[in-house]
Amino acid sequence: MSAPVADTRSAAGHQVGDPKEDSRGFRNALGQYGTGVAVVTALHDGTPMGMTVNSFAAVSLDPPLVLWSVRSSSARAEAYLGAERFAVNVLSTDQMDVSAAFASGGPDPEAFARLGWTAGVDGAPLVDGSVARFECRLHAVHEGGDHRVIVGEVERFSFSEGEPLIFVQGGYAAPKPFSEDIDSGGPNDRVDPADEAGETLSFAQLLTAASNRLSRGFDEHRTRFGLSVATGRVLQRLSRGPRSVEELASSAFLGTRAVEDALSQLVEAGLVAGSGAAYRLTETGCSLRRQVAASAEQFSNGALAGLSDADVDAARRVLGALASQ
Amino acid sequence: MSAPVADTRSAAGHQVGDPKEDSRGFRNALGQYGTGVAVVTALHDGTPMGMTVNSFAAVSLDPPLVLWSVRSSSARAEAYLGAERFAVNVLSTDQMDVSAAFASGGPDPEAFARLGWTAGVDGAPLVDGSVARFECRLHAVHEGGDHRVIVGEVERFSFSEGEPLIFVQGGYAAPKPFSEDIDSGGPNDRVDPADEAGETLSFAQLLTAASNRLSRGFDEHRTRFGLSVATGRVLQRLSRGPRSVEELASSAFLGTRAVEDALSQLVEAGLVAGSGAAYRLTETGCSLRRQVAASAEQFSNGALAGLSDADVDAARRVLGALASQ
Repeated sequence: MSAPVADTRSAAGHQVGDPKEDSRGFRNALGQYGTGVAVVTALHDGTPMGMTVNSFAAVSLDPPLVLWSVRSSSARAEAYLGAERFAVNVLSTDQMDVSAAFASGGPDPEAFARLGWTAGVDGAPLVDGSVARFECRLHAVHEGGDHRVIVGEVERFSFSEGEPLIFVQGGYAAPKPFSEDIDSGGPNDRVDPADEAGETLSFAQLLTAASNRLSRGFDEHRTRFGLSVATGRVLQRLSRGPRSVEELASSAFLGTRAVEDALSQLVEAGLVAGSGAAYRLTETGCSLRRQVAASAEQFSNGALAGLSDADVDAARRVLGALASQ
Repeated sequence: MSAPVADTRSAAGHQVGDPKEDSRGFRNALGQYGTGVAVVTALHDGTPMGMTVNSFAAVSLDPPLVLWSVRSSSARAEAYLGAERFAVNVLSTDQMDVSAAFASGGPDPEAFARLGWTAGVDGAPLVDGSVARFECRLHAVHEGGDHRVIVGEVERFSFSEGEPLIFVQGGYAAPKPFSEDIDSGGPNDRVDPADEAGETLSFAQLLTAASNRLSRGFDEHRTRFGLSVATGRVLQRLSRGPRSVEELASSAFLGTRAVEDALSQLVEAGLVAGSGAAYRLTETGCSLRRQVAASAEQFSNGALAGLSDADVDAARRVLGALASQ
């Protein structure tokens, strides 16, 4: 099969680059390291401000320190560097709208009012629904190239149950445990890992295994066409009609920058044309898209081959009932 | 239902603490922020050394800078602080064994030989199979409480397709996209998100939806018993018999520290007894475990209630065939 997009791979399938010459490649490489998503909040002249970041990191337990980075040229950098207190709000998978609301722009009292917040111990806003909060006092600021690294001493933390939002390969994701956290309650409960290929898997375990196998298959299949997660999704969304960067980001659960990078790659490869307000597939893009879809259908059908139509229909009924619970 | 383990929650379900007084709570809060998993490698007196970290973060694009933190009291800290070059290897979901191999200990030529590596541009080992590598020159070292923050200038990056490994809530996970990256190829391909509740979902989409619904159900159910991801898994694994910390970490896909924290909580709650070599459930622990299992069984059965046995059996056949492909 062809690899129309990523044609700069080394023999081992590794794309190699100099970050000074290939900024987009460097960003893509960085995107392979998954992160959470956090909104850093502070008061600026008494007005709450927030900023979505994925540069948060734990530093030290004793004293309790955390860090994050702000782009020096950002309009909000000065305000954050001058804030004695800030709070880091770690977002849940229910808060992609919060991430988007604070991805750009400065102090936005309306966004805060809409999303809900309370004042922390020293005023820094705590965003409702976040799965963890760290209320910090500014501890140190370090030079970091085009960014400043801000280190905070944590004065209070809080956390709650909930599924933390993940950002990886330019897009949002949820964490999927390897261990199905599933209690079958029945005899399977005493099944040792070594026996898990046996016949006594619970329905939930079977469901997880089948779902994982199928999505791995679709991944392999996407890769064969030289498509990354982001270029694959953008190509698919554009097959429904012209779309803007914002529409693509929101419908494909991708960050704006990942969409822009994917579009540049697709435009360079002659698969997409257009600009800001509306990108669309070229004829070559439509044709590749049809190939991808046809090959995916073949894979889907292959996966179900050998099973009777009656069984597949029954399985559809069961899955549909479960999904709509 | 009772909440035997986490009884320090505030009314809003947020557990609140002072990190200076509650180190474990602080670690649990930090664990809500997902990260990738990386092995930082360097040459020490010509011998390759590696260390698993989840403190990696991107800092700057121009100049290209990244950072990570090393515990100052670590035996390897001096070696890393003295290394002019180091490489950051971002691990894939196939590399949990690599993460474990470098989670402790110092230079380990045997581990390197077993896992496979090549020398990078300036000697720092590049681990085979990693989804991204950053070859760095030491740029700066900052004080960071009980850690040092090491900033590197990236001289070369590389990355490949592959599923990045995630570490969150003390355990390993894979990223699960919100957007099923699934090309149905059929009419569904033109279904707009608004119609996705309609009847034309592909089999793969149905499978994803059912699987997500069921694991959300199990999560809710675990939370009702006051169990976290880690305490829930440890409790379940111990129901199979006494286990050591290492056995629990490996079979439950948890980090060693998360297992230790979970065991402390469970011991405090009177659910678990024992020490290092073998922990076991107490009578109270067995009883809670039985309650959890019974309630899970009820949930499982409820989810399948209203479906005929014939349909459920057929669905099991289909899922089993898919899973074993």
